[in-house]
Amino acid sequence: MSPSNIHASPMANLPLFIGIDGGGSKCRAIITDNNNNVLGSGVSGAANAFQNLMLCQKSIVEAAEKALVSANINGLRISELIAGIGLAGVNVPSAFIAMSQWQHPFAQLHLTNDLHIACLGAHGGENGAIIVTGTGSCGYRRVNEHSLMLGGYGFAIGDQASGAWFGQQLVKHVLLSLDKLAPATKMSVLLLNKLNCHHALEIVERVANQSSSFYGQLAAIVFDAAADNDALALGIIKQASDYISAIGQRLCQDESLDLAMIGGLALTLKPYLSDDLVSQLVRPNMPPEMGAIHYAKQQMTS
Amino acid sequence: MSPSNIHASPMANLPLFIGIDGGGSKCRAIITDNNNNVLGSGVSGAANAFQNLMLCQKSIVEAAEKALVSANINGLRISELIAGIGLAGVNVPSAFIAMSQWQHPFAQLHLTNDLHIACLGAHGGENGAIIVTGTGSCGYRRVNEHSLMLGGYGFAIGDQASGAWFGQQLVKHVLLSLDKLAPATKMSVLLLNKLNCHHALEIVERVANQSSSFYGQLAAIVFDAAADNDALALGIIKQASDYISAIGQRLCQDESLDLAMIGGLALTLKPYLSDDLVSQLVRPNMPPEMGAIHYAKQQMTS
Repeated sequence: MSPSNIHASPMANLPLFIGIDGGGSKCRAIITDNNNNVLGSGVSGAANAFQNLMLCQKSIVEAAEKALVSANINGLRISELIAGIGLAGVNVPSAFIAMSQWQHPFAQLHLTNDLHIACLGAHGGENGAIIVTGTGSCGYRRVNEHSLMLGGYGFAIGDQASGAWFGQQLVKHVLLSLDKLAPATKMSVLLLNKLNCHHALEIVERVANQSSSFYGQLAAIVFDAAADNDALALGIIKQASDYISAIGQRLCQDESLDLAMIGGLALTLKPYLSDDLVSQLVRPNMPPEMGAIHYAKQQMTS
Repeated sequence: MSPSNIHASPMANLPLFIGIDGGGSKCRAIITDNNNNVLGSGVSGAANAFQNLMLCQKSIVEAAEKALVSANINGLRISELIAGIGLAGVNVPSAFIAMSQWQHPFAQLHLTNDLHIACLGAHGGENGAIIVTGTGSCGYRRVNEHSLMLGGYGFAIGDQASGAWFGQQLVKHVLLSLDKLAPATKMSVLLLNKLNCHHALEIVERVANQSSSFYGQLAAIVFDAAADNDALALGIIKQASDYISAIGQRLCQDESLDLAMIGGLALTLKPYLSDDLVSQLVRPNMPPEMGAIHYAKQQMTS
């Protein structure tokens, strides 16, 4: 069966689903048939319902349209797709309400937070726990209908061990070091070069009012300096590693749960985590977008 | 001589000056005659040239107008006053340039940063060093024409030991504690009550995108909890105290300089500072606004 006749054919495994994972820097969409066969996928920009609702909705539609183009199914429209959407930011009640009131373009929309779909995806719909370290960070576990969410409050007041947090710690430590209030660090030259700056005040100008994505893009400098044995960089990573350990312990303390680490920094951080934590980790089963489709199906049958 | 005839009288000690101290949450103005007799004063809102240039200029004019009303001198206009202005944020080159291009209402405007006038004020125009802990924080010293500025980069990436920094540390620690990723702390109940919240996510909603002034207003909670022997609160204060000691040492390491602490938190912090640092401190001589007038006079004769 070619993709082009799925829509018309009685063999098409209807209905079709779209699973969407909206995060602080990217929004990913995947279209599947009712048997979880992937028909198309698309990626767009930031989709955090709390930080920027309009942009979030725009990114969702854009990712869905790209997935539709990629699926290339004659005559198929967004309005025929059943959407499972997991979004960053909807753990904040006002953002969840605002998103629920959206005049969305889908046949149905089943909305939950990005951690829920990530956990469903990572553990194939089974009970389990995840630690996310991407642009933001968060811990989450789901045991039957009971969930626990830890952190994920944004890098200004939380999100320890996230990309944005690393970038912010980097800037703080470099400024202290340039003021000779902290030891010299290899991170200083790396940051000055990366931002094309010559002194502290230029750095301040460049980073003022920047988003979490901007700071997240600086995170690699900390790991580059750490690989070169820089003490301040290793200290920042130690702080992050301790935080992740604390989250891991707290998620799994009452239950023997599979724990998966996901997000853009997960592999980068792994060598710095304690052996205890690493021994508990399992590989994630499916991506969050597939977890979103799993969620939509759960909601339809519940 | 009554204030009402200063303007017309040959005894009026002309010219008249206005000294303005613009900071992250308040702008203070003082009008004096040429013999430093205070004729009037006024206070308005935030005046940080880097954070918000338009608001900064508006606050300057408003403080000047209030000082003019308070001086109550018949026929005296802003355009007759020689202004010395020290502003937060103009250490960032782009903000200094933008302020220099302002079509200001004064007879003359002599612009420098807020630390310079604070230091001139604190040490009566003599060489000296200051540590400012208000809404923001900063270290500064001036020896003849050579100045050194430490920190003052804003609470997102610096301003350790400032009011905004204390407020942010408070929120971070309370969120960690409510997630049971840090020990219980008396600060949690105090913060929840202060913000009229019931759980972590409500706190996150309330503090999102808030200004440094907002965070600064939460700082007192840390000291209230510390007075009640709360370990986390005492830990935050210890971090601040270490930072202030480092700044103090760095400012006075090459020179035997008088060091003054100024800003809204200076007295609150003093009991937590090391004996070494406290023994170095002198009382500030005059307020920053008088330092601004001193600066204008220096510039006119130089």
